[in-house]
This record gives sequence, C-alpha cells and structure tokens, in this order.
Amino acid sequence: MSIFDARWAELPDHARELPGGGLPAGFRAAGVAAGLKADGRPDLALLVSDEPGTVSAARFTRNGVQAGPVLATRERCDLARLRGVVANSGNANASVGVRGYDDACAMQDRAAAAIGVPVSAMAVASTGVIGVPLSMAQVGRGIEAAASALAADGDAALCEAIRTTDAFEKRAALEVRLSAGTVRLCGQAKGAGMIQPAFATMFSFVETDAALEPETAELLLGATVKRSFDRISVDGQLSTNDTALLLASGAAGVAVAPDSDDELALGQALDSLQRALALAIVRDGEGAARVGRVVVRGGTEHVVEEVARAIANSPLVKTALHGGDPNWGRIAQALGAALPDTAPLPFDLDIEGEAMVRAGSPVGFDLRDVERRVAGPAVEYVVGLPGDGAQCEVFFSDLGHEYVRINAEYTS
Amino acid sequence: MSIFDARWAELPDHARELPGGGLPAGFRAAGVAAGLKADGRPDLALLVSDEPGTVSAARFTRNGVQAGPVLATRERCDLARLRGVVANSGNANASVGVRGYDDACAMQDRAAAAIGVPVSAMAVASTGVIGVPLSMAQVGRGIEAAASALAADGDAALCEAIRTTDAFEKRAALEVRLSAGTVRLCGQAKGAGMIQPAFATMFSFVETDAALEPETAELLLGATVKRSFDRISVDGQLSTNDTALLLASGAAGVAVAPDSDDELALGQALDSLQRALALAIVRDGEGAARVGRVVVRGGTEHVVEEVARAIANSPLVKTALHGGDPNWGRIAQALGAALPDTAPLPFDLDIEGEAMVRAGSPVGFDLRDVERRVAGPAVEYVVGLPGDGAQCEVFFSDLGHEYVRINAEYTS
Repeated sequence: MSIFDARWAELPDHARELPGGGLPAGFRAAGVAAGLKADGRPDLALLVSDEPGTVSAARFTRNGVQAGPVLATRERCDLARLRGVVANSGNANASVGVRGYDDACAMQDRAAAAIGVPVSAMAVASTGVIGVPLSMAQVGRGIEAAASALAADGDAALCEAIRTTDAFEKRAALEVRLSAGTVRLCGQAKGAGMIQPAFATMFSFVETDAALEPETAELLLGATVKRSFDRISVDGQLSTNDTALLLASGAAGVAVAPDSDDELALGQALDSLQRALALAIVRDGEGAARVGRVVVRGGTEHVVEEVARAIANSPLVKTALHGGDPNWGRIAQALGAALPDTAPLPFDLDIEGEAMVRAGSPVGFDLRDVERRVAGPAVEYVVGLPGDGAQCEVFFSDLGHEYVRINAEYTS
Repeated sequence: MSIFDARWAELPDHARELPGGGLPAGFRAAGVAAGLKADGRPDLALLVSDEPGTVSAARFTRNGVQAGPVLATRERCDLARLRGVVANSGNANASVGVRGYDDACAMQDRAAAAIGVPVSAMAVASTGVIGVPLSMAQVGRGIEAAASALAADGDAALCEAIRTTDAFEKRAALEVRLSAGTVRLCGQAKGAGMIQPAFATMFSFVETDAALEPETAELLLGATVKRSFDRISVDGQLSTNDTALLLASGAAGVAVAPDSDDELALGQALDSLQRALALAIVRDGEGAARVGRVVVRGGTEHVVEEVARAIANSPLVKTALHGGDPNWGRIAQALGAALPDTAPLPFDLDIEGEAMVRAGSPVGFDLRDVERRVAGPAVEYVVGLPGDGAQCEVFFSDLGHEYVRINAEYTS
C-alpha cells in the first residue's frame, strides 16, 4: 500500500509516485544486519550523497534529555552540508550516560571514514532499546558491510533497517515536475512502534536531486516539518531521538532558486511527502486501530495549538475514538481544560462534518448518523473558538488495549 | 477499610478517626434514591448546617467548559456563607446548553426552600452522565424526600448518594484536639469512576463544628486543596464539575482564631483528611490497579510542577507503573520533554529509595532489587533538577486495560 492511499495524504498535480521506488540521482543507500536486533533482521543503514555540493537541513527532538547520536550530530556536523547519515535500529543509544555520546561519535567517525566524507558531513541516528550500551564491534562491522552494499535503489533496504516494531514500511519515491526540469524526491521514515523499554522514536530521511541553496533546504524542511511531524501525536510523548533530515544532491542538474515558483512547487511536493510519512507513523502508532484529525480555528496561534494538542492527547478522546464513540462531551472537556478560567466558552464543534455544538450549546443532530460517520478508520473533528485568523491541526492515533499491552507488558 | 489505611495518608497525633462516622455538631445529611440512576441506587444527597452563623469556602474546576451547577453555585451563592449543598449523581447536568444552568438554579431554589435557607446559602453539584437533561420532576421529589430524612448520622447515606462508579466509599470522621477544645472534622468525597460518557468528576464535602472566620475557612480550604485534590491525576483530564466545599457550623462552641496555634492544628487535621480523600480517589481511579507518587525538587515552583505533572500524566510512565516495570528511561523522557531545549540535563532520579540516575547518567543499581521494590501497590519516584528551593508532588494512578475498557467500550 502506498502511504498516499490514506485520508489527508494527497499529492499535488505536479508530483507522481514512482511505484518502483529508487533514490534521487546522486544518492546511494544500504541496509544490513549487524546483529543489534536479536532476531537477525536488518538494523544498520547508510545513506550517502556522492555529490560534494550537497546541501541539507535537519531538525531534532527538543527534549531536554537527548540521546548521544542527537547530541553528536548537532555538535559535530555542519547541518547545512550533510552528505549522509548512519542509522541503526535495535538500540537507541539513549540514557547510557557519557558513553552514549562517545559511542555515537565513534559510529559517526567510522561511517565518515568508510564513505570518504568529513565527519562534519555525517549525521548519526539510533533507535531501539534504551539504557543498553551499543555493541561497537557490531556497529563497526555493520558500517563496513553497508558501505560495500550501497546502491541507487537501496532506499527499500535502508527503510527496512531503521524499522523497530513498525508494522509496515513508510517510504515513497516521487517525480516532481518543476519549470526548470523534473526532479526526484524520496523519503523514508520510521515510527512509532515501541520496543522493550524504548521511546516512540521517529526518523525521517528525505532526499532530492534538485540543487538547493542551504537556505532553501532549511526553509523547506522547517516549513514542512511544522506541517507534518510537528502535527502528529501518538501519545503526547516527545522522544529523545527524533531526527528529520533533508538532503539535496543537485545531481539532476535542476536548480531551484530561492523565492522562485519552483521553490514553491518543490515545497508542495515535499509537504505532501512529509505529511504522508507523518500520517503513516500515526496509523502505525503504538497499537493504533484508528486515527483522528482535529482542526482548531480561532483567535491566536498559541491558543489553537494548545487546544488541538489537548484534544489530541486526551486519553478520554483517544479511547472514545478507539471505541467509535462520537463523544463530543469529552472534546468539550479537553478543550475547556486547555482554556482555564474562560467559562462560559462559546465554542463550536463539528464531527465528520456534522454540526454538534454551536456557541457552547449542543444542536439538534442525528446521533445514529454521527455514530455511523465515526465508525471508519479516520475521524475528523473541527473546533471553532472565539476570534479568527489562526488555525492548527493535529493528527493522532487512538488509545486501545494494544497500546497498554505493548507498553505495560514489556519489562526492562 | 479506612481511607487512612494507605501509604502517604497519615493522621497527625492530635486527630483520631471515629470508626462509627457521624457528622460534626450542627450538621445533618441524607441520601435518597430519586430515580436518576436506572438501577435504583441512591442518587440525591442533601447536606445542611442548622447554624445560621455557618461559614464556608469553596473551590471549583477551572475548566473553561463548566457544568450548570458549578456556574449556578459560583454566580448565585455567597461562598463564604454556605449552609448546605444539594448534590446528585447519575446525571452531571453538563453540556446540555443553557437548560443546564436553568435546571441547576431550579434545583438550588427547591433545596433552599425545602431546608429553609436563602438560595445564596445553597450550593448545587451534579455528577454522572453528560449531555442528557436532568429530570427535574425526579430531582424535586428527591429533594423533598431527602429533606425529610436529614439526620446527624447521615454522612454515610450522603456519601452513598454521590457515588457514580466508585468502587468504594471515600469518607472519614475525625475528632481533633485543639487547645480551645475538641472539634469534629468530617469529609465525604467521590471520584474518579467513569460512567457512560461522563467525566472524572470529583466532589469533596468537608464539615467541622469548629467556629471559623470566613477568612480562616478560605485559607484552610485553599491551602489543603492545593496539597490534595490539586496534586492528584488519574488521566490528566480536568473535569467540568469538580467541587470542593468546607463548612464550619461553630456548633461545638470551639472558636479557632486566625493565626492561632489551633488554626494550625485544625489545618493539619484538615490537610490529612483532604490528602487521604484525594489519595482514595487516585486508588479508585478509572481502572487503577496501582498508584504512584512523584516528587520533584529543583529551582523554581513552575518548573517542578510542570515536570511532576509531565511524569504523572505520561502514558508511558503510567503503563510502566501498571506493568511493575522500573522503567527509568520513560521518566527521563517525560521530564526532558517538559524541559525543552535544556539538553544535556543533569537530573537525578530515585525509585523507591534506590538511586537510579545521578547528573543525567545511570548509576550502578541492582535491577532485580528495584523490580522487587516496584512490585507493590504504591511506587515512589523522586526527581532532582538543577537548583533548589522548590518542590512539587503529584499522586497518580496507572494506565491499564481496565481504563481502556471503561472509556472505550461505553458509547453515548
């Protein structure tokens, strides 16, 4: 199934998916089994651009507790000039003290040497079990094996090697028509499956063979991350390892100038890809059976985001979504809790297009009809608050028994 | 079982529990079946002080969406001169539009008339199903029946009539020795069971026959609510109906002067009672099997509270508590998420008195020993952040299958 075969995931007209996959020109990737996963599945991935002029941008978790690889990438790399990333699954290299940072640096050094790029151009990312030191011997052998296996169609292997308990792979390869020519845009993501005592870590690696200025890469990544990974929630828990990268090799010979129409067109395709990847993470969220989208409109940016997050992260809303229950009272409770001392609050609420509440009072609606509408795999809630001009959406997964099973029944 | 037979619930030496219960002098109460609960259990309660000089204090939910009874009590009462409360279970009179406020006022009027006190002295509180209008005919008949049944030992009947799906009753009667004489202090609470699509509403009604100035009642209620009901979380969801009342009849003839040693002594007993009631709510939280206490110490009041709440409300921490898993990595993740952009964060963590983390790095601990310690019904986490001078504790319930079952399997 394509990640675009989902509600709220749409491609713009000037982009089309390449069913066969394959990386943009200038990129190679590989995924190998280094032995970090006990079951022998692939667990070490390399992504590299062969173009010295490659530009990049990066975003990381803002968690005050960060894993060694996040600190190593932030501190040792020129984030606008990344040439690649070395990533492993099976071990998050998190919460193991200063050793985690040292091991991440060693992993970075080894990958940079194997590929022949400066250390400052090699990002490093880890996901999996926490609190357990990395086996650097396994990592070293894995890097050598991956470096030998790098291929232009290695995106599938890379995506496989960054999975933890993901139920399905999350990747896409797009062809994007710009006025200056056609470019390719690919992305691979992982999350938010949980493994023994791990975090809901997410990675997103996106590559293009368009030629971008560093400022353009930064602008496009920043803008699209805000509309994708910043807008999803499985359980409201910010990971210590989240990493989102954009690399542009320029190998297609198609330059995208700042402030050009092509910048907008590439941004639209990137936006679509990031949202589809992010939505795939929500659909694959810890034990998720159903996904919701809440859109909040109202007076200020801060308020609409607070309210959207409060609804998306409410366990009462999430269990109602799980149960197929159009429980608008729980939406009211959650939004009111996010806006203390404002009673009475004249809010509006629509569920699946049906008007439920106007100015704080329920309106005549057909409950059986609404119940039918919320029985599907995706449910949309639209909240109106006093004022206008601001809007925020958050995509979220439900809360069901499988979440509890995954997170309560494992022990460290 | 006494609500004081629990960890973290202790009585001061100058207070003792009266196993037989019974209200303080000057108070009468009743609970009757008005037909609001389909199964015929008691659902309408009256509490009244016969002393015209009774003083009081009140606290309510800060939710921006508030039920009719909360609005009616706040707007129509002199909260320092309450003489009683009329409360019902089985229907929260919430989210039914303006009708909810009108019905709450009518309920208040009827109870005030039945008791013979001014409307401004009668609080009103409702809990139960939301989105369904109250049957005022049932409420009216219930008020008449309750008014006829008022008794000095009616605290048990009152407590029974405010239960929704509470697994056990939450009340206590204390005798408190002050220098000026002995007074009685009683409390009845309900929560946080969930019923078909209801909120985790909590009530706490506390009575004493000491004579207090209104300022003293206000001070004591405010200070003790902050250390009890403000410090508990079942699922981080603020209700629309929460109501906490303190009524002092003065009928014992024991005056407690502002700033006196007796004020402190009564405050200690009240604090103990409120904490025991609040803890009983956490133990009876939606599907709760185990309870946790997190204590955060560090630089500022705001930060320690944010971090304590982030840990208490983290579904990953709560599922780990459910599973008896000493998963300190999830504590690290949750506290770091509450302190964005502070990495690396030199925090300390102890679980059940065992040092787990110092200055952000794990220390050598005996995992099997910690696993044994977290296998009990109550688990304590102590977090140290940089700086000192501030401290916050939050009591919280776990997240297990029963929570999901209760909240996902009901439909509205």
